Amino acid sequence: MVEHNDNVPLTDSDASGIHPLAMLFRARSIALVGASQAEDSVGGRPIKYLRKYGFEGQIYPVSPRYDSIGGLQCYASVRDIPGSVDLALLAVSAARIPDVLEDCAVKGVPTVLIFSSGFAELGDEGRDLQARLVREARQHGVRICGPNSMGTMNLRSGLTATFSAVLERDHKPGPIALISQSGMYGAYILAQATALDLGLGLFATTGNEADIELAELLDYVVHDPETRAVLAYVEQLRDGDAFVGSAEAALEQNRPIVIIKVGKSDVGARTAQSHTGAIVGSHEAYEAVFRQYGLIAVDTVDEMLDIAQLVDYGVFPKGKRVGIISLSGGAAVMIADACVASGLEVPTLPVEVQASLKERVPFAGVANPIDATGQLFNDPDFYKDFLGALVDQPDIDTLVLFFGQMIGYVKNLGTTVVSESVNAARESGKPFAMVAMPGDGRAAQMLKEGGIPHFTDPERTVRAIAALANFVERRETLLDRLRRTRDLDLSPIARTDVDTELGAKNFLAEHGLRVAEERLARSPEDAARHADAVGYPVVLKVNSPDIAHKTEVDAIKLGLSNKAEVGNAFEEIMRAVKDRRPDAEVRGILVQEMIPAGIELILGVKRDPVFGPMILCGLGGIHAEVLRDYAVRRAPVDQDTAAEMLSDLRGYALLEGTRGKGPVDIESVIEAIVNLSQIAVRAREWIEELDINPLIALRDEQGCVVADALIECAPLSEV
Amino acid sequence: MVEHNDNVPLTDSDASGIHPLAMLFRARSIALVGASQAEDSVGGRPIKYLRKYGFEGQIYPVSPRYDSIGGLQCYASVRDIPGSVDLALLAVSAARIPDVLEDCAVKGVPTVLIFSSGFAELGDEGRDLQARLVREARQHGVRICGPNSMGTMNLRSGLTATFSAVLERDHKPGPIALISQSGMYGAYILAQATALDLGLGLFATTGNEADIELAELLDYVVHDPETRAVLAYVEQLRDGDAFVGSAEAALEQNRPIVIIKVGKSDVGARTAQSHTGAIVGSHEAYEAVFRQYGLIAVDTVDEMLDIAQLVDYGVFPKGKRVGIISLSGGAAVMIADACVASGLEVPTLPVEVQASLKERVPFAGVANPIDATGQLFNDPDFYKDFLGALVDQPDIDTLVLFFGQMIGYVKNLGTTVVSESVNAARESGKPFAMVAMPGDGRAAQMLKEGGIPHFTDPERTVRAIAALANFVERRETLLDRLRRTRDLDLSPIARTDVDTELGAKNFLAEHGLRVAEERLARSPEDAARHADAVGYPVVLKVNSPDIAHKTEVDAIKLGLSNKAEVGNAFEEIMRAVKDRRPDAEVRGILVQEMIPAGIELILGVKRDPVFGPMILCGLGGIHAEVLRDYAVRRAPVDQDTAAEMLSDLRGYALLEGTRGKGPVDIESVIEAIVNLSQIAVRAREWIEELDINPLIALRDEQGCVVADALIECAPLSEV
Repeated sequence: MVEHNDNVPLTDSDASGIHPLAMLFRARSIALVGASQAEDSVGGRPIKYLRKYGFEGQIYPVSPRYDSIGGLQCYASVRDIPGSVDLALLAVSAARIPDVLEDCAVKGVPTVLIFSSGFAELGDEGRDLQARLVREARQHGVRICGPNSMGTMNLRSGLTATFSAVLERDHKPGPIALISQSGMYGAYILAQATALDLGLGLFATTGNEADIELAELLDYVVHDPETRAVLAYVEQLRDGDAFVGSAEAALEQNRPIVIIKVGKSDVGARTAQSHTGAIVGSHEAYEAVFRQYGLIAVDTVDEMLDIAQLVDYGVFPKGKRVGIISLSGGAAVMIADACVASGLEVPTLPVEVQASLKERVPFAGVANPIDATGQLFNDPDFYKDFLGALVDQPDIDTLVLFFGQMIGYVKNLGTTVVSESVNAARESGKPFAMVAMPGDGRAAQMLKEGGIPHFTDPERTVRAIAALANFVERRETLLDRLRRTRDLDLSPIARTDVDTELGAKNFLAEHGLRVAEERLARSPEDAARHADAVGYPVVLKVNSPDIAHKTEVDAIKLGLSNKAEVGNAFEEIMRAVKDRRPDAEVRGILVQEMIPAGIELILGVKRDPVFGPMILCGLGGIHAEVLRDYAVRRAPVDQDTAAEMLSDLRGYALLEGTRGKGPVDIESVIEAIVNLSQIAVRAREWIEELDINPLIALRDEQGCVVADALIECAPLSEV
Repeated sequence: MVEHNDNVPLTDSDASGIHPLAMLFRARSIALVGASQAEDSVGGRPIKYLRKYGFEGQIYPVSPRYDSIGGLQCYASVRDIPGSVDLALLAVSAARIPDVLEDCAVKGVPTVLIFSSGFAELGDEGRDLQARLVREARQHGVRICGPNSMGTMNLRSGLTATFSAVLERDHKPGPIALISQSGMYGAYILAQATALDLGLGLFATTGNEADIELAELLDYVVHDPETRAVLAYVEQLRDGDAFVGSAEAALEQNRPIVIIKVGKSDVGARTAQSHTGAIVGSHEAYEAVFRQYGLIAVDTVDEMLDIAQLVDYGVFPKGKRVGIISLSGGAAVMIADACVASGLEVPTLPVEVQASLKERVPFAGVANPIDATGQLFNDPDFYKDFLGALVDQPDIDTLVLFFGQMIGYVKNLGTTVVSESVNAARESGKPFAMVAMPGDGRAAQMLKEGGIPHFTDPERTVRAIAALANFVERRETLLDRLRRTRDLDLSPIARTDVDTELGAKNFLAEHGLRVAEERLARSPEDAARHADAVGYPVVLKVNSPDIAHKTEVDAIKLGLSNKAEVGNAFEEIMRAVKDRRPDAEVRGILVQEMIPAGIELILGVKRDPVFGPMILCGLGGIHAEVLRDYAVRRAPVDQDTAAEMLSDLRGYALLEGTRGKGPVDIESVIEAIVNLSQIAVRAREWIEELDINPLIALRDEQGCVVADALIECAPLSEV
């Protein structure tokens, strides 16, 4: 085996000490199977591009049809190659792939990258072929990227293992990685980055993800020492746990992942028994996970590349406080607006500083934002003082400058402003961003060399700064939360009988939730006796595995205050059920305490096909369902996350007390959420959906009580 | 007077038949007072730019210091100019402006444009100077643009009456107008438009708006026959009614106004007596007006110019239905997502069409979005068929194509795709937009010549299309609504005594709202007698001009069911008021019917300093205030608008009936909103804030009833 770069990260390494994915970016010898003399074909372009980008390792064309390609000796089979092969690129028809893969296995090639299509994307037959491929590769210890991948690149070393024509243009190397589930869209992002003079480093398109998938690639690149941020284009995740793992690694490595997830509009009808099931769709799950694990989710490539550009320039705001200096009052207000809207702060300058600036330019705005006014055209010297006053403030983390079209259009003034800005940025060590059209002259060059990124739109600039400032601010918090959830006991709980309300509540009570006091009655007399024991007033309701929504069939009676009422209620419920749901199995009638007044909440669990159990909380009644006011996270959650879920609710003020009513016991609700999230994980194998509706949060410090619960289990065959 | 262009719009014309603002864009002779031989000064640049841009009229430099400037004869005073002067540009110090203005008046100059600063922007002294200037100008019938304006331009005729260095670069003429309250930001928008190769036509910066203000300029440009859309940059409106008038004119003329309003974050504490006052801030008023009068409000110049670019290319979608054809499945989903999020539709192709496409390319996505897949690289001919199938659908209004980096990077294929697209666009007459980086080669040129605009970001493209499609779709609706509000009787209502609940409710009842039946009692006996008449149960509450929130002082008692309870309640209320608000003037106790169960709403009025009376509606209780679920419009509103306000509420479903409860009388609530909006306008001189809280909407068709009302009047001195 050839020598490898010292920079190859060794985390997650296999026995050989080399990360199994390293070859996609750091191979020293590459075989191209299906190589072609036609430069513009899939079998021709990789050689052309490897040479164009200065790849310094060995290139071995493989094809029985040629003796040589472009001066390189050509081999009939991978087996014939004299040296070792780190990476094989497969550009032959799908039918030939199994044989070629065997050749690679025999040759000891650790990693193959399959360009060819004709696999799972074609349907059942292709899926079978792909599955066989993976089985064989695993037997031989060969890793596969693809099939149907457009390839990978390391633009820093010139390893361009791709046939994408995007490489017809020149792209510069840089510290940003890009992992894309779409080859074409990935190439398009690269083309746009290049148009902005932004350099990418590692780039991979995952294709069908038969073996190596997005999460594993993310994990690899966040550990790459030369990578400072990762861009990800995602259509659908296959392994949510692995994805979450790579997101945690990104937090630990301090490398933001900026992600675009397509496929937001949920198509197809939703059918679900529980309220939670009806509320939480797959898009909500993705959004919740992105937020919970610190990913920066964006809608557009513009936003993605704005953030990447900040990172490329080393702009990593330490905090959320922004200083603004602007040639235009309107732009100053616009930037300040955008800061407030994005959660950034614009601290007011101390009065004495304001006074001294005002002395210099009486009609300037000096509070922060600073409006330098057109006076700058007459007297450019004061810019240095104004800028100095701003950077000197210890409570300002980042500077945003607005100079519109001035820098590019008013020559001497432009270079003066830029050189003062560059000096101030250097001396203060604080990150700067310039909103301007600096043109293509000297001022633009000075900005670039001086390490100040420039943007044209104030709002977009601020949003990008806010995204990074938020990442920086939340990183430690999120890591702490993750550490705390690791301390929870997450050992599996065996499946148990939870198909009635009583069963569900007993299960929840066993695992630490407080449920309403209740007893099961088989007759009116039973019911009356239980009511005496529970204490009046009581609630009666049917206990049946077949009736999810009791109100709809009149199978619940509230506020019963004596034996007679209880007896009648029992009979009425039995009659109502017999009338309306004659098919329903009735397992007695529950006699339950009336819980004192409080605020009703709904807590829920839904098993997401990608991310596993998700937990929901919202206010009860109309809030979660009609007003769509709820919060969702991936289970498990810690106290801090649970508290954040509650404060995310628009109706949070109701829990804190309004209109003369005191607060409810919020702490107990937080504990209930944490507890339920833990149960959700422990029973993830068999609980599909779960509703606690309502959970009644009592006033002051009286706790909270599960008043009703419903659990939907996976079909027995699944477990 | 010189001859004028036939295109000068004659609406709003003065006696001479010339629009008073025409000279800012169509002057044939321009005097520059304060002209300078220094080419790069404020007094030098206008001459340089007028010549550079090929202005064909007369230029008269005015300065006592020179005999000639750049070969043009220079005059000591405007009075000395031999020919007539359509427009005078004033570039002298503020102190000299009054004299120069007099010269202009004597010379008969209809319009002056004042570049000079040193007026209202400096504070009180400058404000006085400015006010004197306007008084004098009005006496002489001279119109003023500015002072402190950066100027105006008509890039179509080369009339560049500005000193902005943005004209150092070349800008191309086009059908888009730009009116900006910031000179520098306006110039910056122009620079960005030019970077996109987008042409502007008329451009004005309003400066201090001493005389001519934004709304009047908007009104002028929307009537300009060569203008197809207007961009507006707004910091603060002075005359809301005039602004609304120009917005209506824009709807009538079918010219969208795309607006950026800065200054969103409300600073300073809000103090208001009524709930409505506390809820509706100035930003809400702006947003409501923009929506109500069909303006397209955007946050960024990017969005503004995306829309302008569509208009420039003549892309004016007839409807909301989009056809998508994409080289990448991911991009196809992204575009479809963006369509759904923006309120556009993506109709599914008929099954037989899908089948025929599937036959051609078995693994293509064919439902719409069409995923053409990489197969296009092997077999470009099928593109024509696919595109044809899509444009032929009568239920598709606009086509969005995605070709990423292919067009610019894969030469022959790129031009093939573009030429087929251009043909299909021409033949179908349907608007197309291309999402791609076409590079700068032949394909890019073909796109431009073929009239297909290109964008790089899918999401941004769709948002721009949606903005225009929405404008087109809503234009007629909004005009109808405006016509209907014109039929309302809006004659002023004289001020009347409304300082107690009874006064406010009597006033509302007089003007057509149904209020709860109630009588005023002065003693417990009175109260009991009234209760008998009203019918039990009743409500008792204090009637006082000093107590706005009765619950807080226990001055309201509900559900009283007999004489004795009523008598006691009377005494209790009197005691509570005496205890807690001994200063309050009590004007008896109201005995009111208990209104049957229904849904509580809040209706409100707040007089906005810019737009006059705004009307609010929301659900009662926690909804409007705690959950911030409410809708706001400028009064008056018609039935259609009132219905839209209700359906805008997140909690609208509660009015329609949920959880086994039937609907309330929504029609009657709509009538109440319309009625109240009419009252708000008729009493705009003296009503500052008004709450109907609650308005109780009854079930079925039983109407709605005002249960409580509060009116805050303007101080008497104001009226």
